[in-house]
Amino acid sequence: MVKTINVGLIGFGNIGTGVVRALNENSKLIMSRLSCPIKIARIADIDITRQRPVKYDKNILTDDTMSVVKDPSIDIIIELIGGTKIAKTVVETALRYKKHVVTANKALLAHFGADLFALARENEVSLLFESSVGAGIPIIRSLAYSYSADRINTIRGILNGTTNYILTNMEEQRRDFQDVLKEAQEHGYAEPDPTFDVEGFDTAHKLCILASMAFGQDIRSDSVYVNGITQVQKDDLVYARELGYIVKLLGIAKLNESGKAEVRVHPTLIPRTSTLASVRGVYNAIEIEGEPIGAQMLYGRGAGWGSTASGVLGDVIDLANAIASGANIPYPINIPKGKKNIRPISELSTAYYLRMTLKDVPGMLARVATVFGDQKISIKTVLQKTSDPGKFARVIFITHTALEGNLQKALNAMKEKKLCREKPFVLRVEE
Amino acid sequence: MVKTINVGLIGFGNIGTGVVRALNENSKLIMSRLSCPIKIARIADIDITRQRPVKYDKNILTDDTMSVVKDPSIDIIIELIGGTKIAKTVVETALRYKKHVVTANKALLAHFGADLFALARENEVSLLFESSVGAGIPIIRSLAYSYSADRINTIRGILNGTTNYILTNMEEQRRDFQDVLKEAQEHGYAEPDPTFDVEGFDTAHKLCILASMAFGQDIRSDSVYVNGITQVQKDDLVYARELGYIVKLLGIAKLNESGKAEVRVHPTLIPRTSTLASVRGVYNAIEIEGEPIGAQMLYGRGAGWGSTASGVLGDVIDLANAIASGANIPYPINIPKGKKNIRPISELSTAYYLRMTLKDVPGMLARVATVFGDQKISIKTVLQKTSDPGKFARVIFITHTALEGNLQKALNAMKEKKLCREKPFVLRVEE
Repeated sequence: MVKTINVGLIGFGNIGTGVVRALNENSKLIMSRLSCPIKIARIADIDITRQRPVKYDKNILTDDTMSVVKDPSIDIIIELIGGTKIAKTVVETALRYKKHVVTANKALLAHFGADLFALARENEVSLLFESSVGAGIPIIRSLAYSYSADRINTIRGILNGTTNYILTNMEEQRRDFQDVLKEAQEHGYAEPDPTFDVEGFDTAHKLCILASMAFGQDIRSDSVYVNGITQVQKDDLVYARELGYIVKLLGIAKLNESGKAEVRVHPTLIPRTSTLASVRGVYNAIEIEGEPIGAQMLYGRGAGWGSTASGVLGDVIDLANAIASGANIPYPINIPKGKKNIRPISELSTAYYLRMTLKDVPGMLARVATVFGDQKISIKTVLQKTSDPGKFARVIFITHTALEGNLQKALNAMKEKKLCREKPFVLRVEE
Repeated sequence: MVKTINVGLIGFGNIGTGVVRALNENSKLIMSRLSCPIKIARIADIDITRQRPVKYDKNILTDDTMSVVKDPSIDIIIELIGGTKIAKTVVETALRYKKHVVTANKALLAHFGADLFALARENEVSLLFESSVGAGIPIIRSLAYSYSADRINTIRGILNGTTNYILTNMEEQRRDFQDVLKEAQEHGYAEPDPTFDVEGFDTAHKLCILASMAFGQDIRSDSVYVNGITQVQKDDLVYARELGYIVKLLGIAKLNESGKAEVRVHPTLIPRTSTLASVRGVYNAIEIEGEPIGAQMLYGRGAGWGSTASGVLGDVIDLANAIASGANIPYPINIPKGKKNIRPISELSTAYYLRMTLKDVPGMLARVATVFGDQKISIKTVLQKTSDPGKFARVIFITHTALEGNLQKALNAMKEKKLCREKPFVLRVEE
C-alpha cells in the first residue's frame, strides 16, 4: 500500500483557491503522473467564513495556522500568505518540523532566501519556489536543472505584468502613464497602491532569485539598482519606436569574466525585432544567455491563479514523486553558496537614450557633443524635435557604449554650463 | 568517499566533441552543481584516428562500441550516433545492462519511444532525452515536471531550424525556395540531401515525442499528417504578409474534449503579432497551451553543438545527482501509457489560405463563392492579384474555420467545373 502524501495549504485566497480548483479539475490526470497519491489534508486562513468558489471539505479549514504547520501528519506545506512576516514564521517552522515547503513568495526569498535554503538543508527537506518568478513559467526548474552545465552570463527579464501592461498600452495607444495606470487598476492588473510594481521593487525581488541561482551568489534586494517606470513619457515611447526600439521594464543581471555581478532594474530600450520586444500586456518572459546553451527565452503568464497554481502544483507533484522514490534529500536544488560580488552602477558600461531640452541656438549641438566627447561618450544617433522654435529644442540622443560614471559627469557638466532647460531624462539601452 | 559516476559516450562527432568540450570548459561550475563527481570514462566511435578539436585522454577512445555499452564500470551511456539501427541496439543493450541512458535521438524515440521507456522501467533505469527536441530548450523536462498539473490542449512548435531559416530568408529577402535552400546548404544549415528537413519529417519526429508526453498517448510518426515547405512560393509569403500573417512550418498537436489527438506538420499562416512569429532563422520555439497554466513559449537554438551538449549534460547531471541521492528509480518520467487515439486529417477543422488562378471573367468570384458555400465554407478575406488581365486572375482567399473534408469536396467541385487554371495551393491558418 502506497502512503498518501498529505499537503497543508497555508493561505486560502485567490491562489490557494486556484490550487484546490486545479487539483479538483485535473485530478485524474494528476494522479496518473504521481507514483503516490497526494491530498490537501488541511487548509489554514485567517478568514474561515468567506465562501470560496471551489469544492472542498469545510472540516479541513482552520484559522489556527501553526496547528497545520506543526501537524505531524503533514508532509508538505504550501505557503501562499505572501509578505515577509507571518510567511517567514510559517516557512521556518515548517522546515524545522522537517516538512518540505512550496512557496510562491518572492519577497520572502529575495530577503531571506539563502538563510531559508540553509535551514531546509539542515533539516534534510526541500524548499521549492517555481511560482515565485513568472508564476508557472518553468524558469526556476530550468536554472536548477536544465542549464546546470552552462555558465549563465546574462539574464534579461520582463518580470512584472503590471508594468508591462502599462508600457504596452502607453505605446500602442499613445497614452500617458497615469491614464493607463488608472485603467490597469480598474482591470485589477494594478494594485490600489501600485508603488511596489511601478517603482520596480517586485521585479527586483524576482531578479534577486534568478541572479542568485544563476550566478551561485547570495544576492539580496539591497544589492539591486532599481528604477521604475513612473517618469517614462509617452513621447519617449514614440521616439524609441522611431529609432527602432521599444521600452520595457527589464530586470537585468550579468556576470563578468572576473565573477562580478551587475544586477539592475530599469526601463530599457531594446530592439523592436528582438523576441523580448514581442512580449505584450501582462505576459512575462525571461531571456537567458549562457555558454554553451546560447540564447534562450521562456514566456508565459507571470501572474494569476492558473499559472501560479500550475507552478505550485508542479513543485508539489515533484516532491511527492521524490519522496515516494525514496531519495535521501529529495530534489537537491542549485542554491546560492557564494558571497555576493556586486559591481556598483557607476561602473556599468552600456548605451544610453537621453531626452534633453536644449536652447535652440546655433552651435548648441556641438557644445553638447563636446561635453560628451570629454567623457569619452560617443553619439550614435541624434533625433531633433523642435518643441519651441527659436527658444528650445527637444533633442534625443542614443549613445554608443559608455561608462555610467562618465555619463553622470557629462550630465553634471551640462548642468554647470546650463545647456539644458531641465534635467535630461536618461534610459539605458540593451542591444 | 563519494563514488564517481562513470559516463560512456557513444558517438564522438560534432555533438560528442561538444559534450567533452563543455565539460572541460565549465568543469568547476559543473562540479559545484553535482553532489558526486562525474567522469567521461570511455568514448566509442567508428573513427578513432581523426583529430578532434578538444582535449581528451586518447586512451579512453575505442571503436568497440559494445565493449563500452556493456562495461560494468559505466553508470550512464550517452547515445549520440543518431538513426534507428546501431543506435537502437546501443540503447537497448545499455538499458538491459541496467545503465541509465541519455540520448538526443529523435528518430529513435519517434519510432520506438514507448518500447524503450518500457524497457528502461523494466530494468529500473532512466532514459532521458531533453536534447531530442529543440536541443537544450527545456521542453522535455517542463512537460515531464513543470506542467504536470496541467491538461495540455495544444502544442505548436517551430521544431526545425533548417526550414525556419529558409522561410525566414524567403520572406525577408523575397527569394525563391531553391535559391535560399542552396545558401542554407552552403552555410551548413541544410544537409546535402535536405528531404528529411524540408519535407517535414524531422519536425514530425519531434512532434511525436512532445505529443506522446503531453497527451499520455503512444503517438508514433506514422500517425502524423506531414506536409513540407517545398511548394511554398515567395509570393505566398508576400500575400500572407499583406494579410497580417507569416508562414512557419509548424508541428501542431491538439487534444480535443473526448481525448482524440490531431497531430500534423505543415506550413502554416500565423498572425504576425504572435510571439511565435518573432522566431527567426535557425531558432526553434515551442508554444504550449494548457489548463490552468495558459499559454507558454520556450525558445532557443534548436540545433548545434552548444545547445545540444547543454541539454545532454543537463540530463547527465540530473541522473548523477539522482543516483547520488539514493533514489530507487531515479527520475521517473512522465512516459506515454495510453493507446493512441488520432483524429484523421479529414476531420480537421481549421481556417485555410488558398492561392488560385481563376479565369478572369465577370461572375467568376461568385461561382467560386457558391462552390465554397455549398460546402459550408465561408470566406473571410479575398485578395485579387490580376496576373494575366482578361485571361486569368490570381486570387487569394482566407476562409473562416471549415472542415478539411469539406474543403477537399469544394476543391474537387472546382476541378470538375474547371474554374481554376491549375490546382489551388492550400495552406492552413492558425489564429
